[in-house]
Amino acid sequence: MELPLDVTIKEVGPRDGLQNESDQIPTENKIEWINQLSKTGLPYIEITSFVHPKWIPQLKDAVEVSKQIERNPDVTYAALVPNMKGLERAIEADVDEVSIFMSASETHNKKNINKSIDETYPVLQEVVEAARKEGKSVRGYVSTVFGCPYEGAVDENQVISVCQNLFDMGIDELSLGDTIGVANPLQVDAFLKKLERYFMKDHIALHFHDTRGMALANTVAALQLGYHIFDGSAGGLGGCPYAKGATGNVSTDDLNYMLQEMNIKTGIDQSELLKATSYIQDYVENQLPSKQMNIFKKQ
Amino acid sequence: MELPLDVTIKEVGPRDGLQNESDQIPTENKIEWINQLSKTGLPYIEITSFVHPKWIPQLKDAVEVSKQIERNPDVTYAALVPNMKGLERAIEADVDEVSIFMSASETHNKKNINKSIDETYPVLQEVVEAARKEGKSVRGYVSTVFGCPYEGAVDENQVISVCQNLFDMGIDELSLGDTIGVANPLQVDAFLKKLERYFMKDHIALHFHDTRGMALANTVAALQLGYHIFDGSAGGLGGCPYAKGATGNVSTDDLNYMLQEMNIKTGIDQSELLKATSYIQDYVENQLPSKQMNIFKKQ
Repeated sequence: MELPLDVTIKEVGPRDGLQNESDQIPTENKIEWINQLSKTGLPYIEITSFVHPKWIPQLKDAVEVSKQIERNPDVTYAALVPNMKGLERAIEADVDEVSIFMSASETHNKKNINKSIDETYPVLQEVVEAARKEGKSVRGYVSTVFGCPYEGAVDENQVISVCQNLFDMGIDELSLGDTIGVANPLQVDAFLKKLERYFMKDHIALHFHDTRGMALANTVAALQLGYHIFDGSAGGLGGCPYAKGATGNVSTDDLNYMLQEMNIKTGIDQSELLKATSYIQDYVENQLPSKQMNIFKKQ
Repeated sequence: MELPLDVTIKEVGPRDGLQNESDQIPTENKIEWINQLSKTGLPYIEITSFVHPKWIPQLKDAVEVSKQIERNPDVTYAALVPNMKGLERAIEADVDEVSIFMSASETHNKKNINKSIDETYPVLQEVVEAARKEGKSVRGYVSTVFGCPYEGAVDENQVISVCQNLFDMGIDELSLGDTIGVANPLQVDAFLKKLERYFMKDHIALHFHDTRGMALANTVAALQLGYHIFDGSAGGLGGCPYAKGATGNVSTDDLNYMLQEMNIKTGIDQSELLKATSYIQDYVENQLPSKQMNIFKKQ
């Protein structure tokens, strides 16, 4: 089995994980958590989102969080922005990188962004251009890449077209999301083999969800093709909204454990990561679904 | 990605799952559960264990369960036996197949069976010979194949030697257990490639535990090499004794879902399997860890 020697794990817990939490977590605890994560060897942390607080009240303190964390120069601090207003706040808060997002399926995009796919492009184009003018790198997220909760299967050519349009705008990296956790290893293998005809693997990240327990299996399918950038959420924070209590984001600690056991370098200290993850457990409603956290807590 | 067209899933929940339950489950409910499982398309169910009730009080009703279930002629009903006394009861109860067991690591074998590995062989040899004389097929379980809770790594040649000795006794199939869920896909790939030099894949089953979330990833690693027999426990029943609440056996429903999504035939009706699994949920202490059950319950 041929696998990459090094993998980059990008931590999305403080944004993608926390945004699903119903109880407001105090700003100071978010800051402390991000500071702890910054010391684990994680090279990249998505710390918040500059969407309007009306949509995600949990992240209304985006500017405070961004300004008050202790920046580790070895870490890239990113934040999600939906539009120019969000970008202005992100620039004010001086994040290193901005993330834009859209869906590969029309219905999910419409429900999530309230625009058709074609209507979404000009909004994102404006953000990407302005962000680059400010010297920020830009990451794109495409959701429902492997399946849509409304439409079911998503046409692969439609996904590739969305990816191509985002790269054409000048983004640096694309994160492909299995939003509802329906991807299977055979599908991942077939789709990523197709994708490599169009895009460089150095610019593609995989964002798997563990809703059906296949996130690590899908990760290995991608690794076998040489893909080497993966998103994770500490402790698996961020449940799936379609099934309360079910798993959403793959857990960074489970991912890091498996990679290191397979002799793949990630640069992340597993023990420090588990300690940092324990910190946030006290402030969230449900038990974190991560297997490693479960074992860690019993020790 | 090349995968087998057909996979055999062997259900071990009524034995391997229930044996970890502390509250005694009424015999009639076990029987009803096995009867329901028998109608799902599962080709094989390990229904109980004929170990002395002193060791596993939960399964003290082994004879009653075996005699009172409705036998589906398309299902092989198996039971675990540790010695000649257990075999006598299993024959009295007329199971179709008997399973014997031992560990690949000295310490685990000693703690589990109270004998060294070399002292274990003659006991098992006697059971296998007597079982075959009665026309029963025999399955062997080897535990701690991919790691031992006491010794850590287990020498691959030691595992192969144990397997060889069991096949030499005349067993029909060997189930290789990742007892503490430490196997990773790279290790599975390397070990199974070595193993295929010695044994036919048609006689080797993989028994993965999901303690660290890698069971499905390990399954795919084995499938890619053409291995096609896997054990599962309905709902993931049977927690890991080393971490209360943590996952042990891979869930049959998660396994069956992934295989069918990859166009692999198992013959098991997923919806019937989930219904049967829901039945036992009411009689066990903890929420079943299966992802599919979690989604099923929300529907």
